[in-house]
Amino acid sequence: MLSDIEIAQQNEMEKIQVIADKCGLTPDDIEQYGHYKAKISFDAIRRLESKPDGKLVLVTAITPTPAGEGKSTTSIGLVQGLQKIGKNAIATLREPSLGPVFGIKGGAAGGGYAQVVPMDDINLHFTGDMHAITAANNLLSAMIDNHIHQGNELQIDLRQLSWTRVLDMNDRALRNVTVALGGKVCGFPREDHFMITVASEIMAILCLAKDLEDLKERFGRIVIGCNLAGEPVYVHQLGCQGAMALLMKDAIKPNLVQTLEHTPAIVHGGPFANIAHGCNSIVATKLGLKLGDIVVTEAGFGADLGAEKFLDIKCRYGDIFPDTIVIVATLRALKMHGGVPKQELSTENVEAVTKGFSNLQKAIENMRYFNVPVLVAINKFATDTDAEIAELTRLCDEFGVPVELNECWEKGGEGGTDMAKKVVELLEGPKPTPKFVYDLEDSLEEKVNKIVKTIYGGDGVIFTDKAKKQIKQLADWGLDRLPVCMAKTQYSLSDNPALLGAPTGFTITVSDIRVANGAGFIVCRTGDVMVMPGLPKRPAALNMDIEADGTIKGLF
Amino acid sequence: MLSDIEIAQQNEMEKIQVIADKCGLTPDDIEQYGHYKAKISFDAIRRLESKPDGKLVLVTAITPTPAGEGKSTTSIGLVQGLQKIGKNAIATLREPSLGPVFGIKGGAAGGGYAQVVPMDDINLHFTGDMHAITAANNLLSAMIDNHIHQGNELQIDLRQLSWTRVLDMNDRALRNVTVALGGKVCGFPREDHFMITVASEIMAILCLAKDLEDLKERFGRIVIGCNLAGEPVYVHQLGCQGAMALLMKDAIKPNLVQTLEHTPAIVHGGPFANIAHGCNSIVATKLGLKLGDIVVTEAGFGADLGAEKFLDIKCRYGDIFPDTIVIVATLRALKMHGGVPKQELSTENVEAVTKGFSNLQKAIENMRYFNVPVLVAINKFATDTDAEIAELTRLCDEFGVPVELNECWEKGGEGGTDMAKKVVELLEGPKPTPKFVYDLEDSLEEKVNKIVKTIYGGDGVIFTDKAKKQIKQLADWGLDRLPVCMAKTQYSLSDNPALLGAPTGFTITVSDIRVANGAGFIVCRTGDVMVMPGLPKRPAALNMDIEADGTIKGLF
Repeated sequence: MLSDIEIAQQNEMEKIQVIADKCGLTPDDIEQYGHYKAKISFDAIRRLESKPDGKLVLVTAITPTPAGEGKSTTSIGLVQGLQKIGKNAIATLREPSLGPVFGIKGGAAGGGYAQVVPMDDINLHFTGDMHAITAANNLLSAMIDNHIHQGNELQIDLRQLSWTRVLDMNDRALRNVTVALGGKVCGFPREDHFMITVASEIMAILCLAKDLEDLKERFGRIVIGCNLAGEPVYVHQLGCQGAMALLMKDAIKPNLVQTLEHTPAIVHGGPFANIAHGCNSIVATKLGLKLGDIVVTEAGFGADLGAEKFLDIKCRYGDIFPDTIVIVATLRALKMHGGVPKQELSTENVEAVTKGFSNLQKAIENMRYFNVPVLVAINKFATDTDAEIAELTRLCDEFGVPVELNECWEKGGEGGTDMAKKVVELLEGPKPTPKFVYDLEDSLEEKVNKIVKTIYGGDGVIFTDKAKKQIKQLADWGLDRLPVCMAKTQYSLSDNPALLGAPTGFTITVSDIRVANGAGFIVCRTGDVMVMPGLPKRPAALNMDIEADGTIKGLF
Repeated sequence: MLSDIEIAQQNEMEKIQVIADKCGLTPDDIEQYGHYKAKISFDAIRRLESKPDGKLVLVTAITPTPAGEGKSTTSIGLVQGLQKIGKNAIATLREPSLGPVFGIKGGAAGGGYAQVVPMDDINLHFTGDMHAITAANNLLSAMIDNHIHQGNELQIDLRQLSWTRVLDMNDRALRNVTVALGGKVCGFPREDHFMITVASEIMAILCLAKDLEDLKERFGRIVIGCNLAGEPVYVHQLGCQGAMALLMKDAIKPNLVQTLEHTPAIVHGGPFANIAHGCNSIVATKLGLKLGDIVVTEAGFGADLGAEKFLDIKCRYGDIFPDTIVIVATLRALKMHGGVPKQELSTENVEAVTKGFSNLQKAIENMRYFNVPVLVAINKFATDTDAEIAELTRLCDEFGVPVELNECWEKGGEGGTDMAKKVVELLEGPKPTPKFVYDLEDSLEEKVNKIVKTIYGGDGVIFTDKAKKQIKQLADWGLDRLPVCMAKTQYSLSDNPALLGAPTGFTITVSDIRVANGAGFIVCRTGDVMVMPGLPKRPAALNMDIEADGTIKGLF
């Protein structure tokens, strides 16, 4: 089998106008970025507003192994499969972060014969959205330090700033820094932190904003910390929301690309799935619903995190709701949940599959809670055995959930036509009525409790004293009735990564609470959440190269 | 008079294909970035290699006032004027840095009716070149800290790292920082600094590299500091030059835009004119010579800095040489050199013009040293009086140098046709034979001495003890025979910003010497050089806004 970049480079792409034409976009509707990428204009988006919506398919997954279960690959394979059976399908996906490309990951635009292309560009600078976010985020940081330096009229407390700088790079040396050293001309020294760009609230805002105006208003509402009197300080008090929006004027336009089989794909926005909601932009998903009869989108991490937030945050703000949910499962992950150690996941173990099914079952129950029809999609790996696949299929049948194996990674759309047909069947049912885990009027404690009990299967939540104080502060500020964004390990339904399968009898401990007031949610952190990754002993960057003729190596 | 952004927004641009067509580029030769910007492919560059070169006009200036004398405006006005008189002219200019846009400056794409457009995009993210440089620079920083963290096989001395991080933002708080705080998982704490992106050696390399392969080789040659044994550490020892080049695969392609009058302009690369050489890319200038019969390019700061480096560094590496040099002069700057304080520069003062002529005279002599015909271009301001203009014209006539007033700022190309005609006349002379201030074989001390005596009009150079040690180290490393890049105040021919006019009897003190081995020059710093600007009391960002319909405010 060829590497992802080799497959991508051998693939003959269509010019992006051809893809645009396929979804009814005129040459004036798009702004090309090279021959194979384009931004879609807001004029086009507004023109299409009156068109009826297509159907929405959400792709999520069981609790994943560290390698991930192939949600992007399955999503891309699914639209390729839908196209193969004659459907007008479109994918709306997250855009990858540049930093991890140079670390372990190497790339994040699907895999094998289910990729979005040009994969090199999508994995590198793409259309510059990440860089725009970095600039807007860091302009705000510079404006804050400058405000303090130039007299600090707002009395900003430099000990209590929650706004941090960002960079789109895996760089552990930037996690904790002191800035403004060097004496009077360099400002007031203080502690600061760099997060990776996708963890910026700017990214979450981009993904939840309706349009440029909404984006600017949300920027204005961002709380950057508090003043010496303990009151919140908003960006609109600093007055730079206009300049920040100006920096984002192109980033807010969705990006059009294609799959290896020339299916249209909108790749736009990609916030973290821990301290943010982990889904591509509302603008992109809603546009997809105007352009395609079936839209396939994905949410980060497992169904307990990405999908819950997709439904409770993104769907609520975007006034959308999925018509079908696809849960990606791998035999490897099931065996892991059945107790098999990482190095033995390639060995046949039917018993472990049976045992590990509990995790998938909980994911199915969770998604069915929302009254949406569910399909289990087995993402086939070369090491899966017939006996294991038969056992998983039997378990699904027994549980009464449709299941379909797919070989999209190896065979592209051809390997996903059976899955596509099943999805089409499920889409023929009645439109689900939107349902959420909690009400907006619930208190913060109630909201988290409902998520823990309904989705995680736990007994309840414990707030540390620090978290309780923070809740009190948010209540005092009148900012405590927003949706909740849980920042929790993706490796367990609980907040303990060692608890596999479908644990019960546990509680969740919330140790830190921050308002992302511009994005419009409250982040509840359980345990340490890594917001700035580091590079490994041997970074992927060392394998990367570009030859004089443009041939790229080491992106995978 | 309208503001720059208003003029730009009222202007009807041609689609970029039309501009490409005008210079003989096919649709396949360019990669569009939106409707009005494009990258030019290396396939096109290679195809055009056998075409004969056009004529090259360098635009430089007298020693400037803090506001600048309008080199970009004059350069753009000149190509517009050349086009008006029927010439096939093209401008090759520097791309502006994002950071200063939010500070005092507000923009840097010409002014009035002599601008390159789309000015908003050119001033903001443009085609992402700056962001690519930021990413390549900071990937190297992350790789360095990661190397040290993961065992430090190369024995890099973290006390002696000369490579710093960069960000394209005016942010004084990042001038001096400590990084890698937070214990074992965050690396080894050390002092670091952020420069503004245009000060990165990556930018200088982009502007001096022949092609992608040369770029990668130059990245490999960068010296990042030394090891515990005092030996230089090169990027190729870390092994990430390939990944860095991959990040720059699009940034190395020149950007095509247009003037307000639809003249083609290539805007590509823009290194600092103090710690770097201050000219747009060699790739862009050489491509311009294939596309246009007359190419107008500019160099940063005054003739003592940008033009000297253009000739001694860029021309040497690029195997090019100007056919004519235009020296931009303003009455305001001449009066300043004649001793008039800043707040009185708008008042008529013919005597001060006479007195301040010494600075212009020295610039003319300097440029004539290179045996290139010179034209003095008076950039007209509304406050200039007829008597002042007459006096300057008289002084030029007396000195035997052609002089022409232009009103490009107010009238565009129409205001520059007389200047254009004079340039065409000068271009009819014989091709100048390349001449340089120093030979590459000269010692570092000899090179600096020659620049000081020949160009600055000083008596010689003093090296501090620190600088002497650094020269010895470069000699030990065998890296001491490169061209010299003087980092000196732009406000005086000397290294003392208070010495106006054409001072004599002074010496220059070099206090710090660094090799930019990838770029291929040795930076000699005289006094403090600001490599990370700060924001002013009232940043331009506060005036900026973008409305729902896309109307932009506050860029000027």
